[in-house]
Amino acid sequence: MKISHIEHIGIAVKSLEEAIPFYEQKLGFTCYAIEEVAEQKVKTAFFQVGETKIELLESTDPEGPIGKFIEKKGEGVHHIAFAVGDGLQLALDELGAKGIQLIDKAPRKGAEGLNIAFLHPKSTLGVLTELCSK
Amino acid sequence: MKISHIEHIGIAVKSLEEAIPFYEQKLGFTCYAIEEVAEQKVKTAFFQVGETKIELLESTDPEGPIGKFIEKKGEGVHHIAFAVGDGLQLALDELGAKGIQLIDKAPRKGAEGLNIAFLHPKSTLGVLTELCSK
Repeated sequence: MKISHIEHIGIAVKSLEEAIPFYEQKLGFTCYAIEEVAEQKVKTAFFQVGETKIELLESTDPEGPIGKFIEKKGEGVHHIAFAVGDGLQLALDELGAKGIQLIDKAPRKGAEGLNIAFLHPKSTLGVLTELCSK
Repeated sequence: MKISHIEHIGIAVKSLEEAIPFYEQKLGFTCYAIEEVAEQKVKTAFFQVGETKIELLESTDPEGPIGKFIEKKGEGVHHIAFAVGDGLQLALDELGAKGIQLIDKAPRKGAEGLNIAFLHPKSTLGVLTELCSK
């Protein structure tokens, strides 16, 4: 498996309406896309920072994964996503063989049309880790 | 203030001895430096991932900031650091004037000889945020 860069950092926020102005007006970034991912019960907002994106995640349902995360831990960094080129299934097979617990054994569709898969934070020293490929 | 890229992501770990092999053998990164920052009561290990570094942080003292963080929240992402070029004091002044609570009102020395300053997570939607300049 070859990770080229950090594709994005996912940050759980209570409200995109509050958070987007913070990232734009205080930090100087530009929100270039807002997208709902119904399957994940989130609305996302994207900012490009160098080669990495910041993906803000607002829950559309208190029972969704981001709703539960904020209830338990508050707002903050939710996951880190690494870009693995086009060999995502191979990467998952390799990590599974190395004993990493996979949340997704096969790629599925995420925001921005990427193929994505999550690794369990129990296997990744507490960091919910996503792998992405185009 | 102009942020060019994500300089590093700081991740709190219980043990570098356990964590470095995970990042090297499972994710395929190479640890290029280990450095103790006595003032912060941490030992750090660095990995380059594209233009961003992963900085693992092991506490050298249970009463230090990383020791307390792990006790409260467990292992995981501790902070995000943005590169601001060489205008760090100007950036802090600008953010202070915009109402952001500054942990450091003036730059201080961090790992790798960088000038750094932290913003309070109460002002940054739950994300402990660091600004860095060379």
